Amino acid sequence: MYSNFFIHRCKNFLHKMMIKLITLSSIVAVAAIGSGLITYKLHSVPKKPELNLQKWWGIGEKPKEEDTSIKIFNIDFNDTMIHDLKQRLKNHRPFTKSLEGIQSEYGINTKYLDKIITYWLDKYDFKKRAELLNRYSHYKTRIQGLDIHFIRETPKARGLKVLPLLLLHGWPSSSKEFDKIIPMLTSKRNKYNFVFEVIAADLPGFGFSEGTNKPGLNPVQIGIIMRNLMKRLGFDKFYLQAGDWGSQCATHMVTMFPDEILGFHTNMPFSSRPVSAVKMLLGSLAPDVAVDSRYVDRIYPLKKLFSYLLKESGYFHIQATKPDTIGVALSDSPAGLAAYIVEKMGVVSNRDQLNTPHGGIENLHLDDVLDTITIVWTNNCIVTSSRIYAEAFAWPEVNIIHNIPTPVPTAAINFKYEVLYQPDWILRDKFPNLVSSNTLDLGGHFAALQTPQVLVDDIFSATAKFLDFNAKKNR
Amino acid sequence: MYSNFFIHRCKNFLHKMMIKLITLSSIVAVAAIGSGLITYKLHSVPKKPELNLQKWWGIGEKPKEEDTSIKIFNIDFNDTMIHDLKQRLKNHRPFTKSLEGIQSEYGINTKYLDKIITYWLDKYDFKKRAELLNRYSHYKTRIQGLDIHFIRETPKARGLKVLPLLLLHGWPSSSKEFDKIIPMLTSKRNKYNFVFEVIAADLPGFGFSEGTNKPGLNPVQIGIIMRNLMKRLGFDKFYLQAGDWGSQCATHMVTMFPDEILGFHTNMPFSSRPVSAVKMLLGSLAPDVAVDSRYVDRIYPLKKLFSYLLKESGYFHIQATKPDTIGVALSDSPAGLAAYIVEKMGVVSNRDQLNTPHGGIENLHLDDVLDTITIVWTNNCIVTSSRIYAEAFAWPEVNIIHNIPTPVPTAAINFKYEVLYQPDWILRDKFPNLVSSNTLDLGGHFAALQTPQVLVDDIFSATAKFLDFNAKKNR
Repeated sequence: MYSNFFIHRCKNFLHKMMIKLITLSSIVAVAAIGSGLITYKLHSVPKKPELNLQKWWGIGEKPKEEDTSIKIFNIDFNDTMIHDLKQRLKNHRPFTKSLEGIQSEYGINTKYLDKIITYWLDKYDFKKRAELLNRYSHYKTRIQGLDIHFIRETPKARGLKVLPLLLLHGWPSSSKEFDKIIPMLTSKRNKYNFVFEVIAADLPGFGFSEGTNKPGLNPVQIGIIMRNLMKRLGFDKFYLQAGDWGSQCATHMVTMFPDEILGFHTNMPFSSRPVSAVKMLLGSLAPDVAVDSRYVDRIYPLKKLFSYLLKESGYFHIQATKPDTIGVALSDSPAGLAAYIVEKMGVVSNRDQLNTPHGGIENLHLDDVLDTITIVWTNNCIVTSSRIYAEAFAWPEVNIIHNIPTPVPTAAINFKYEVLYQPDWILRDKFPNLVSSNTLDLGGHFAALQTPQVLVDDIFSATAKFLDFNAKKNR
Repeated sequence: MYSNFFIHRCKNFLHKMMIKLITLSSIVAVAAIGSGLITYKLHSVPKKPELNLQKWWGIGEKPKEEDTSIKIFNIDFNDTMIHDLKQRLKNHRPFTKSLEGIQSEYGINTKYLDKIITYWLDKYDFKKRAELLNRYSHYKTRIQGLDIHFIRETPKARGLKVLPLLLLHGWPSSSKEFDKIIPMLTSKRNKYNFVFEVIAADLPGFGFSEGTNKPGLNPVQIGIIMRNLMKRLGFDKFYLQAGDWGSQCATHMVTMFPDEILGFHTNMPFSSRPVSAVKMLLGSLAPDVAVDSRYVDRIYPLKKLFSYLLKESGYFHIQATKPDTIGVALSDSPAGLAAYIVEKMGVVSNRDQLNTPHGGIENLHLDDVLDTITIVWTNNCIVTSSRIYAEAFAWPEVNIIHNIPTPVPTAAINFKYEVLYQPDWILRDKFPNLVSSNTLDLGGHFAALQTPQVLVDDIFSATAKFLDFNAKKNR
């Protein structure tokens, strides 16, 4: 009896155990299928959206006949502008003193700003700087209704393969950012049997390029304009080099026009695919596995990264939401514009120098920084250039194209103080053909200004790899 | 044999089951203890930090003998300032046109801004406005090293109990914000047997009050200064009314000095205790249970709230991180300052009007808005006032004091377009003696300017409840 009862109880327990086991297996199975689905969903690639490649961004309607001429252009810092600018600078209202013991932790150090304003007034040679910029051949041409400014420099070297290379800058730059590297790219370089014909364009709304009066000119649409510019110049296939927003536009270009771009070199490589974000988050569980131990501190701990990004992204936040508001003051006050740009260019050139009066800006040449500020001032383009932050987040096409990998051979160079860093295995989500990747212990966000030699070395060596890659592909 | 084997297996299963049950019970127990601990931890109240109530905020060291005099002060918009301001306004650089079809969605509408600038130049009567502000008695006195400006108005009515009431404004305001309600508060109101003696102070760094040159002047420290101002004026006990940052400072005051404050009326009631944040998050599981159904859409869905906060907090983000940078342009360009302030005052007065050219600002009187802007301009205090955003997040004492409930009887009034809303059961985490709470379907953030009558009605009825509460307490 006891034994029977015991057997009965055992059977009961067995029954319950079976149910438990089945439940458990079901949970495991559902979890497996679930995470499988999530992984599949994360890795799944959306359909390329149909985009109008001739969208009109000019004032009014698209005319029946378009002006496709290419006009010679010269940069002019004219006397009226200079006089007015200097009057405003001399007449700036008293700066509020930085707090006791504070260097650049609350933003620009106004004692240091004083020095910059004095230099801009008394030492910066507007005419000579314009002349220096004009040593290259400048042009303008009308693409999709907007006057686009660009530099086109053919190589001086003979007997070498000439490769067309489009350079794209970011905010608050213009083609000016590349003036140190243009002659290096168009000149023979040691062992290489090729050289570049350089096209350095100002993004629409930046530098000397016209801004649009229509909403929607996001980095995808700017990418289309830049591709059409290259077509206008006769380049059906070309190479790309870019940083900052230029790199965003370029990333969209290599996704939209993979057959037209022969290689993409970026000093701000980034995969914005959701799967990459998940990987970066998961990486925080084992940072040393996720990233080469030498570079772990460029991402992890995420808390430190987020705290840095939070501290430094106020300008980003306001430009992404209210560019038209903040632009009124910045376009009206040259001292204010200088403070705003100097602070941001400084911190991304060396984020470890917030506890100095210069806040990092002394990693760049002051004349270069003032060229940039003077160009923004002259063209009154702080609003049109800032709107890219708002447009980049307002249109679904941007996220869709972000989520499509590109077959274009890509080369990444990671400078020390670049804002964001991703290891290669994450970059490959977006750039499966990552043929080159270098991570350096020097430099910052404005590589073409801060470390031009290093950048150009890398562009040459990467291009040799692009040539190899394409040769193998076409074999 | 078989039976034995079966019994053995059954025993094994039983054994495993026991282990499983024990494991499960342990998990449940740990979870229960864990959530109990979390709840306890969330509800636990930190120890009040020891604060120096005479901290020196003036330039240099605290002198041996302090100047405690109270000096009569008059607001002066002088001709030099007006001439310079008008020159700058006339000379503003061309505004960038708003995008086609866009009203205020990208920030200020510059066509509308033109109207405001024209009004400021041609219609705003600086002298008359100053005269209007000067109809009250203005003073300055030095508290902890800073010249603090305040209005003090004694009631005209006779035969009534006179209650001292300190009014505290927020950003970008000053005591000016209260000029409509001061005469209402100092006059007899229907059934009430009391009336107020009003002290409306400018927070240090705001309006005509001096800013500090030392880091650390956060809302807790400002609260101490305001309390010491009241002591200087002979008020050991008083009532408080406040909104925006003023309400933050006041919230700290009622926590630090519960025996000195007889009642706290706020038009921006908010509990910043962590437990309140958890409740707001949990509330999203059952919004209709968490909040009166009429007001659910002021919080839930949280996604909509966060999206609004994200869209509208760019100014907050930059002021909390780089106030010294953004202040350079805003203090140098009156058009830029107007754009910046008008945009923000507009949206918090009616957030549903971003699709209009005025963006909400027409809910206020333009003269009131321009008074505020002119006061910021005249005192060149955009940097010193913006720093409160940075200081509020930089010092642990702020969070500690936030997490301590106050016994002071409190009254909340929730206007429709106030930025944040919490139902009473959450407000009580911070204000257990919430004696009055009204939620209205009208009004916005600048209640004293937008709906002065409604605000004053509520202050009177709340104060009657404060008197009852205190009478019962002292019985």
